Amino acid sequence: MTPAQRAVLADLDPVLGGRGISTDQAVIAPWLTDWRGRFRGRAAALLSPADTGQVRAVVAAAARHRVPLVPQGGNTSMVGGATPEEDGAAMILSLRRLDRVRRVDAGAMQATVEAGVILDRLQAAAGGAGLRFPLTLGARGTATVGGLVSTNAGGTQVLRFGTMRGLTLGVEAVLADGSLHDGTAALKKDNRGYDLDGLMVGAEGTLGIVTAATLRLVPAVAARTVAWAAVPDPDAALALLRRFQRAGDAVESFELIPADTLAAALAYLPAARAPVAASHPWHVLVEATSPDAERTPGTMVEAVLAEAMDDGLVVAATIAADERQADAFWAIRDTLSAAERARGPAAQHDVSVPVAAMPRFVVEAAAAVEARFPGTTAGGFGHLGDGNIHFHVRAPAGADAARWYAEDAPAATRFVHDLVVAAGGSIAAEHGIGRMKAGELDRLGPPSRLAAMRAIKAALDPLGILNPSKLMALAPSLPRP
Amino acid sequence: MTPAQRAVLADLDPVLGGRGISTDQAVIAPWLTDWRGRFRGRAAALLSPADTGQVRAVVAAAARHRVPLVPQGGNTSMVGGATPEEDGAAMILSLRRLDRVRRVDAGAMQATVEAGVILDRLQAAAGGAGLRFPLTLGARGTATVGGLVSTNAGGTQVLRFGTMRGLTLGVEAVLADGSLHDGTAALKKDNRGYDLDGLMVGAEGTLGIVTAATLRLVPAVAARTVAWAAVPDPDAALALLRRFQRAGDAVESFELIPADTLAAALAYLPAARAPVAASHPWHVLVEATSPDAERTPGTMVEAVLAEAMDDGLVVAATIAADERQADAFWAIRDTLSAAERARGPAAQHDVSVPVAAMPRFVVEAAAAVEARFPGTTAGGFGHLGDGNIHFHVRAPAGADAARWYAEDAPAATRFVHDLVVAAGGSIAAEHGIGRMKAGELDRLGPPSRLAAMRAIKAALDPLGILNPSKLMALAPSLPRP
Repeated sequence: MTPAQRAVLADLDPVLGGRGISTDQAVIAPWLTDWRGRFRGRAAALLSPADTGQVRAVVAAAARHRVPLVPQGGNTSMVGGATPEEDGAAMILSLRRLDRVRRVDAGAMQATVEAGVILDRLQAAAGGAGLRFPLTLGARGTATVGGLVSTNAGGTQVLRFGTMRGLTLGVEAVLADGSLHDGTAALKKDNRGYDLDGLMVGAEGTLGIVTAATLRLVPAVAARTVAWAAVPDPDAALALLRRFQRAGDAVESFELIPADTLAAALAYLPAARAPVAASHPWHVLVEATSPDAERTPGTMVEAVLAEAMDDGLVVAATIAADERQADAFWAIRDTLSAAERARGPAAQHDVSVPVAAMPRFVVEAAAAVEARFPGTTAGGFGHLGDGNIHFHVRAPAGADAARWYAEDAPAATRFVHDLVVAAGGSIAAEHGIGRMKAGELDRLGPPSRLAAMRAIKAALDPLGILNPSKLMALAPSLPRP
Repeated sequence: MTPAQRAVLADLDPVLGGRGISTDQAVIAPWLTDWRGRFRGRAAALLSPADTGQVRAVVAAAARHRVPLVPQGGNTSMVGGATPEEDGAAMILSLRRLDRVRRVDAGAMQATVEAGVILDRLQAAAGGAGLRFPLTLGARGTATVGGLVSTNAGGTQVLRFGTMRGLTLGVEAVLADGSLHDGTAALKKDNRGYDLDGLMVGAEGTLGIVTAATLRLVPAVAARTVAWAAVPDPDAALALLRRFQRAGDAVESFELIPADTLAAALAYLPAARAPVAASHPWHVLVEATSPDAERTPGTMVEAVLAEAMDDGLVVAATIAADERQADAFWAIRDTLSAAERARGPAAQHDVSVPVAAMPRFVVEAAAAVEARFPGTTAGGFGHLGDGNIHFHVRAPAGADAARWYAEDAPAATRFVHDLVVAAGGSIAAEHGIGRMKAGELDRLGPPSRLAAMRAIKAALDPLGILNPSKLMALAPSLPRP
C-alpha cells in the first residue's frame, strides 16, 4: 500500500467504520475481475460507504491524497468498466450498501432509488405501486441502478421507452471534489443551464459517482401479445416494424434473428421448438403490450401481420397462444448469446447504425467480413428498432482459439468497427466503452467529439481520480504524487 | 471597430461574401434589442453565414482574433439571451440563413432541420409528412429551431412529449474552435461517452453554435377534446390531472388559472365568455388528443370529469362542442400574459417546483409575497402538469411604475426566487437565464452546480467567445487582447 493509500484509509476509518473498509484480499478478490473474466486488476482496499454522506467523504479523501477510485455496483459490465487497473493505484468504491428505495410516487409515476438498488428490486418496487420500470436485461438480478445509469443501459425493451437516458429524470452524484449534485427533485422544467444530470448518464463513473436517481415509471402491463414471424429479408423486417409503429405505440420489442443464429439456439435448447419453420432466412420476435386488460394488443398485432402477409412482407407468422408460449418464444431470444458462444471462438460486437441503415448493414457487413477473413462466419441479430446489432464473427472451423483471439479477432474487430463508422454508426451501442473499447474509441473518434470529451473530463475531474483508464484512456494523463 | 474586429471581417470577407456581412448600423439596429425591449447592446457587425461550413469559418475567425459572438435566431428570447453586451465587443452571428429542412423521414418519425428554420415551418413540414412536431409556443412564427434547442424551449404542449430536450434526438453544433460536432444521425443507442448533444440543449449558445438538429416527430392529431373545468383549489386540480394520466397518455395540456387572472383575461378580450362561471376560484383547461379519428378522447375526458364531479374534485365543467369553441377556450389561455401585463406594472417570474409541490406553492407564495410587500397582488397560472408557474407580482394601485420597477420589483423577484429555492424548484423553468437571470443564478446556485457549469464552460469555450455574459456571467472573465 502506498503512503497516499494509507492516508486515505486513515482519514476514512472514523467515517466508514468496520463494515465500510476492507483490505482483506480474500474479500476484495471477487471484485478484481469483470463479469466475463476478461479483465483483471488490483486494489489495495474495498470501500463500502453506507450512504451519500459517506460517499462524499470517500471522494474527498481520495481527492485530498490523489488516490483513484473505481466505482462498482453489481460488477456486470460487459466492457471491463468496473475493473481496476493492474497497477493497483486505485481503490474500489462499492455502492452496493446504498440500497434504499427512497420514494415511490405512484401519482407522479417516479421512483427515487439509491445507486446500489438491484434492478429486479426496482422492478418489484414499481410493481408494488401498480406500475413498472420498463427497462430490463439479462443481469437484472445483479446489476444496480448506479451502474445502469452510469452506462446508459439498454436491453430488449428500449423501443418504446428508451434507454436509461430516457428513463432517468434526475441524478444525485458526488462530484470529484466531494461536493454533491442533487437532481433527484427531477423538475420537469428546469432551464438553469447545462444538463448535469444528463451528463452523468453514460459517463461510466468518470465525471462523478452516481449515488441515487429519480427514474420514470410507466403503467403496468395488463396484457401482452408476443408474435413470431418469418420475413424474406431485413428490409421486410424494418417495413413490418414501421407498420406496427404506425398502428400505435404498443410495440415494445422487435428483435431480428437470422436463420443461422436461430438454428444455433434451437440446438442449444434441446426442448425448444421453432415457432415457425426454422428454414426461413430471417425471423422477428415482436412484443406488444397494453396497460388495459380489456384492450389487448392482440387484434392490432394480428391485423398488421395479416396485411403484411398479403403484401409479402411476412412469409409465416404465429402468435403465442398463452403466457407459457410467449415465454417459450422469449426463451429462444434470450439464449441467442449463449448459443452463439457455444459455437466456438467468436469476436462479438455491440454496435449500432441508424435504424434505416441496419437492414443493409447486417447483410453487407457479414459478406464483407467473410470475404476479408476467409473461413469466418459473420452475422448479426438484435434490436432492429433501435439500430442495435450484436454482430459476431466466428473463427474458422478448427482454428486455434488462443491464437485466433490474440491475432485474428482484434483485426476482425477493427474491420467491423470501420464498417460501423462508415455506416454512420457507433462502436458502442449499449455496453459502453469501459476498458475494452477505449483504444478503439481513441482510434475512431470523431476527433471533435474526443477533444470535447477530454476537455469535459479534465474540467470535472482535474485530478483524474474517477474511474481512470475507462472510457477516457484518451484523457491526458495527470501527475499524481 | 477594434483592430481584432477588423481582422475578423477581413478573414471572413472572401468566405461570406456580400450577403453574409453587414456593418450598416441601420441594418444591425433591430437585432440590438431583445423581444421585450428590456435589454440593449451594441455590435460592430452582423454576420449571416449561409451554411454550416460558413458558421465554422466565422467561429474559427472569431477564435483566432478573440472576438466574441452572440448567436441569434428569431431574437425572441424572454431573458435577453440573444442581445449583445453594451460594450460592443461582440459581433452578432445570425443563423437565420441556415433555413433548410434537410430531411423528413416519416418512417423513422424524424426531421433534420437547420438552426434558422422557423417553428411554424417545421410544424408545416411535419404536417406535410402526415405527422406533427408537438412543441408550440406564442412566438412560433418567429422563433427558430436553433434558439428552441439552445434554450430547451417549453410551451403549452410539454406534458406529454416533453420540452425540446425530449424532442431533440441529435444536434449539429460548431464548437468554440470551429470544429464540428455532428449528432444528426440520431443513433437510438450510442454509448460512446458523454452526451454532447444533450449538453448543447439549453446551453444558450455558450458551449457551441447549434447549426442543425434532428427532431422527434409524433403522429398527427386526428381528434382532440378541449375541456374547461372549475375546481375548488389547486390540490383538486392536481388530483384531477392524475386521474387523467391514469386513464392513458392522451392529455397534452393541463393549464391552471386562478379566477383573478381569468377575470383579467375576460376584461381584456371583450368578446370572450367564461366557459364556466368565472366566479369559481380556480379553473383548468384540459386538452386531450388522439391520432385516430375513430377513437376520440371525448369519452375518456367526459368519464373522468363526471367521476371527478361526483367526488367533489370538479365543481363545474364543460367540453368544447366543436373546434371553434375549443379555439375560444384556448384564446382565453393564450391571452393571460397580455391581460396580466395590461393590469399595470408587475414583476413576472417563470419558475418551476416539483409538480406535487405546486398546488401549495401557488397559494402560499402568493400570500407570503402580499404579506411582505403590502399593497401588491400576487398569483400564478400556468402549466400545472409540468410544475411550471408564471408567477406575477403586481405593483400596488397607484404606484409609480418607473420607481416600482427600479426598487420594489427587484426585491419582490429576489423574494419569489428565495421561495422557489426553498420549495426545491428552479428560478428558470422554460425561458432560461440569458442576461436577465444571470445574477440570480449566481446568487442562488447551488454552488456545486455553478462550479461544475463554470468548469464545463471554461473547458469547451476557453477563450470565452461564445455568447459572453449570458447564463455564465459567473464564468471567470478571461483576458482578451
